Amino acid sequence: VSPGARLRALIAERGVVEAMACHNALTARLAAEAGFEALWASGFELAAAHGVPDAGVVSMAEHLAVCRQMAERTGGLVVADLDTGFGNAVNLTYAVEAYERAGVAAVVVEDKTFPKMTSLVPGGRQELARIEEYQGKLEAALAARRDPGLIVAARTEALIAGLGVDEALKRGEAYAEAGADLLLVHSKAPTSAEIEAFIGRWSGRVPLILVPTAFPSFGREAARASGKVAMVIWANQGLRAAVRAMRDTFAAVRAEGSAASVEDRIATLGDLLELQEMERVAELERRYLR
Amino acid sequence: VSPGARLRALIAERGVVEAMACHNALTARLAAEAGFEALWASGFELAAAHGVPDAGVVSMAEHLAVCRQMAERTGGLVVADLDTGFGNAVNLTYAVEAYERAGVAAVVVEDKTFPKMTSLVPGGRQELARIEEYQGKLEAALAARRDPGLIVAARTEALIAGLGVDEALKRGEAYAEAGADLLLVHSKAPTSAEIEAFIGRWSGRVPLILVPTAFPSFGREAARASGKVAMVIWANQGLRAAVRAMRDTFAAVRAEGSAASVEDRIATLGDLLELQEMERVAELERRYLR
Amino acid sequence: VSPGARLRALIAERGVVEAMACHNALTARLAAEAGFEALWASGFELAAAHGVPDAGVVSMAEHLAVCRQMAERTGGLVVADLDTGFGNAVNLTYAVEAYERAGVAAVVVEDKTFPKMTSLVPGGRQELARIEEYQGKLEAALAARRDPGLIVAARTEALIAGLGVDEALKRGEAYAEAGADLLLVHSKAPTSAEIEAFIGRWSGRVPLILVPTAFPSFGREAARASGKVAMVIWANQGLRAAVRAMRDTFAAVRAEGSAASVEDRIATLGDLLELQEMERVAELERRYLR
Amino acid sequence: VSPGARLRALIAERGVVEAMACHNALTARLAAEAGFEALWASGFELAAAHGVPDAGVVSMAEHLAVCRQMAERTGGLVVADLDTGFGNAVNLTYAVEAYERAGVAAVVVEDKTFPKMTSLVPGGRQELARIEEYQGKLEAALAARRDPGLIVAARTEALIAGLGVDEALKRGEAYAEAGADLLLVHSKAPTSAEIEAFIGRWSGRVPLILVPTAFPSFGREAARASGKVAMVIWANQGLRAAVRAMRDTFAAVRAEGSAASVEDRIATLGDLLELQEMERVAELERRYLR
Repeated sequence: VSPGARLRALIAERGVVEAMACHNALTARLAAEAGFEALWASGFELAAAHGVPDAGVVSMAEHLAVCRQMAERTGGLVVADLDTGFGNAVNLTYAVEAYERAGVAAVVVEDKTFPKMTSLVPGGRQELARIEEYQGKLEAALAARRDPGLIVAARTEALIAGLGVDEALKRGEAYAEAGADLLLVHSKAPTSAEIEAFIGRWSGRVPLILVPTAFPSFGREAARASGKVAMVIWANQGLRAAVRAMRDTFAAVRAEGSAASVEDRIATLGDLLELQEMERVAELERRYLR
Repeated sequence: VSPGARLRALIAERGVVEAMACHNALTARLAAEAGFEALWASGFELAAAHGVPDAGVVSMAEHLAVCRQMAERTGGLVVADLDTGFGNAVNLTYAVEAYERAGVAAVVVEDKTFPKMTSLVPGGRQELARIEEYQGKLEAALAARRDPGLIVAARTEALIAGLGVDEALKRGEAYAEAGADLLLVHSKAPTSAEIEAFIGRWSGRVPLILVPTAFPSFGREAARASGKVAMVIWANQGLRAAVRAMRDTFAAVRAEGSAASVEDRIATLGDLLELQEMERVAELERRYLR
Repeated sequence: VSPGARLRALIAERGVVEAMACHNALTARLAAEAGFEALWASGFELAAAHGVPDAGVVSMAEHLAVCRQMAERTGGLVVADLDTGFGNAVNLTYAVEAYERAGVAAVVVEDKTFPKMTSLVPGGRQELARIEEYQGKLEAALAARRDPGLIVAARTEALIAGLGVDEALKRGEAYAEAGADLLLVHSKAPTSAEIEAFIGRWSGRVPLILVPTAFPSFGREAARASGKVAMVIWANQGLRAAVRAMRDTFAAVRAEGSAASVEDRIATLGDLLELQEMERVAELERRYLR
Repeated sequence: VSPGARLRALIAERGVVEAMACHNALTARLAAEAGFEALWASGFELAAAHGVPDAGVVSMAEHLAVCRQMAERTGGLVVADLDTGFGNAVNLTYAVEAYERAGVAAVVVEDKTFPKMTSLVPGGRQELARIEEYQGKLEAALAARRDPGLIVAARTEALIAGLGVDEALKRGEAYAEAGADLLLVHSKAPTSAEIEAFIGRWSGRVPLILVPTAFPSFGREAARASGKVAMVIWANQGLRAAVRAMRDTFAAVRAEGSAASVEDRIATLGDLLELQEMERVAELERRYLR
């Protein structure tokens, strides 16, 4: 059973699946361990890990390698953030082939123009592709699948671009018309009112993906209650937790000139060894080193 | 002024410099921000990030890319963990050339045989190279430098291998004889007694690098007081803090089906945007997008 | 049907399959176009492409990427040259998993110690692993397969190391005992006498792979006639042809200050566009660019 | 002295320098050996090596790695083909920083929109950026240099796009106005008449780069005689020679089932060992293996 087919089955079974943002195998392992059904291979988190803006600076080759690593080391269901598809319909064709072979369960392509600017930056430039152009890209992505189970999700940034719910609905319908399996609709409004307005008026032609970063009080239950949502993505909470914890720890070690005081507040060395599969390695050594 | 020369000058000025373990540009930026003078490009942390053991599974190409990225995005002084040198003296020659070009300030090569097993695993296999063989590798590394400022540090695992202080001292002298600029001496004893015994008897022929992971109460002041230590490396505290924080955050989001409760305990989205250099990007857009 | 199963079926059908050495997708496409049933992802050619010795300088990550690219762009059967397995049985376990996922049909692991020296260099250092140690590696490789069709081939360098036919036979039997699917036996003798002596005395317990580089008059028919050979690898003829042609062309362009005289002796620009799949791209543009 | 400064000095000294297209360290070594002063890190050749179209499918990360490798292994002067700059002025800023650190002497950025279609495909889609937009990119590239010696060359595809000599001249002036160090003007006309018309009317404000692929009878002497050309790029002759030679060799080996007949027509194994620096390795082994 392919990863895409597994993810489709999970959605059918659970109604709403939750994906946690990850940017390497370690974060993917922690997310899987916590019970998240899917792993969001976030372009935003990866850009942050590289110390660069989420604006097309990290190459597709680097994001692809992370997706492959996440799938390989966890066996989990990777939902790959393909930004705007790394170019036009031709580039997206090559990209979808490569991500499918890397073992992802779903690809998400947004309707901004390349190079995009990250969605949540205040006042950021947000330009959308023409609807017909983006439909062509979706159709190319769908045709590029070898596994019909691979999920191709459209993503509209109409709300992010300030074009309003009507435009978002119009685009959503057009993308469903082009064959998208799911529709991610993104909002940066400070409350969930905008997204709830969208959901209320959405035809339900394809299920939705939501990303409640700006309005964190919206959660799994609200998604489920709507009857129109297949996936909630937690987009960057893990990395933000890590940054806070590293800052605190670095500051303490620097101030004290010692790691003694942080020792009890952090994971143990044994935890890390376990996350590195050291038990498996010990077993391999016992069996095969002669 | 080359990175190696800058690190030498800092050691001369401060007596003891502190290096914090990092595994990507983001962690490097946080470490630099906290005031650490050097960035330890840790093979252990990188292996953990990839979800694999610290036993030669991650390729040199991948570690090298991380070192380059850390140097490029922070301008900081990278101390590169070269494990056993990726092979023999020939491989190490090519490696030193590549790491120097990647912009590191120092390389550290250990005296285990390849493939090594990570040092701190309880009961792990720990085999050391013959002294003459390792001296040959050090001489090759020294000869491979184009910048005479690049620091080549020897590293003995004699204490880790349970061979005792006498053997560690003998190896340390032999490595200094071969031309090593610094000597990292590693211990996993649960207290600092072993390392203090070593320091007490060390001739001081070259300054030492210490890694107080197993005995965290040993710190900067003890290092400084000894008069024989040039660098203290904090080897994995940041990653352990991140793992703990991500576990807590993932568990909370999973349990609550919402990110609301974690929101106040984690870095803000604005923090991440800043770490991605979004202000610089906004400035570039203002100036050059037409 | 997996690549390994396809290669097994081809061997069963043809008796002897021929593999041509390649080092990127282009050379793989040319080899497939010429009718070679398999593609030898040669470590020697890849090292040459990088301008470095075939002695463990190119990282596994780089070789793996080339194997993946060859499989993806041609759909062909890749036989991956894993050198000594990138370390011990643990490293080889991780390697086999990664190469299988990259889509190769077979992996070949040699019985030298790491870091190896290329086999055909006159007077080169050639050290073999202990038989038991290497058997452990083979068993680890076999256990690491998820697809039972993946071919794990042993490779003995006993003849290269000057240890004679008796030692090569002894090692071959021991490797078959450990479960190897095929046995590559390598010779650099200037005639085929040595390899024919080996073949004559080989029990036939597993079929052989031959690499007739030093004795080019030995070919497909001799292999077939022996009844003991499953594969012949042409190990570097393509790259050597390319080097000769590029040298001639570069010299002519340099001498003449013009490309006019070489124009008729080289492939056309149209040939290159075809090898880049430009027809497919034109078709994708017609269908999906709007 | 930086690579850029060295290339500037060479241009000043020779009037016209010649760059040969390369796509890896081996081809770069052969080009340097033949006496070419510069190495054209061709996006077209790299795409061909990957078996994909020259249309933004190969990631910047992969092209950058090849540029680095070419510079490192030959010490030669790399002229990097940056296509359209991998996005807008922001992406180009990050790209120029990365290529400068990789050790290139010059970057060339073309005035097409992303994703470009390769220039020489018959009937290919060729869309140009607005002049002001492209000037902004050039200014960003110039500002991103840390080494003022790094050459930033503009490249106009106006002739390729069928817009005529007037438009090409207008764009050339605008790009010189924005600060470009050199101007590459590209033509696919079947004779040199078009490019000679351009040269005749060019103000000479900045020197030109020519790429005589479609009109190979135009060469070094014609370039020199014009008094306006600083560089001639031979854009793909080496790869075309290699393809022809590999095709012939593969066909012969396949037909004959033996490598005997090709042996005398191809470079020797010793040639390859030399190109792999095996003498250096032997020397390193003698000195440092103990």
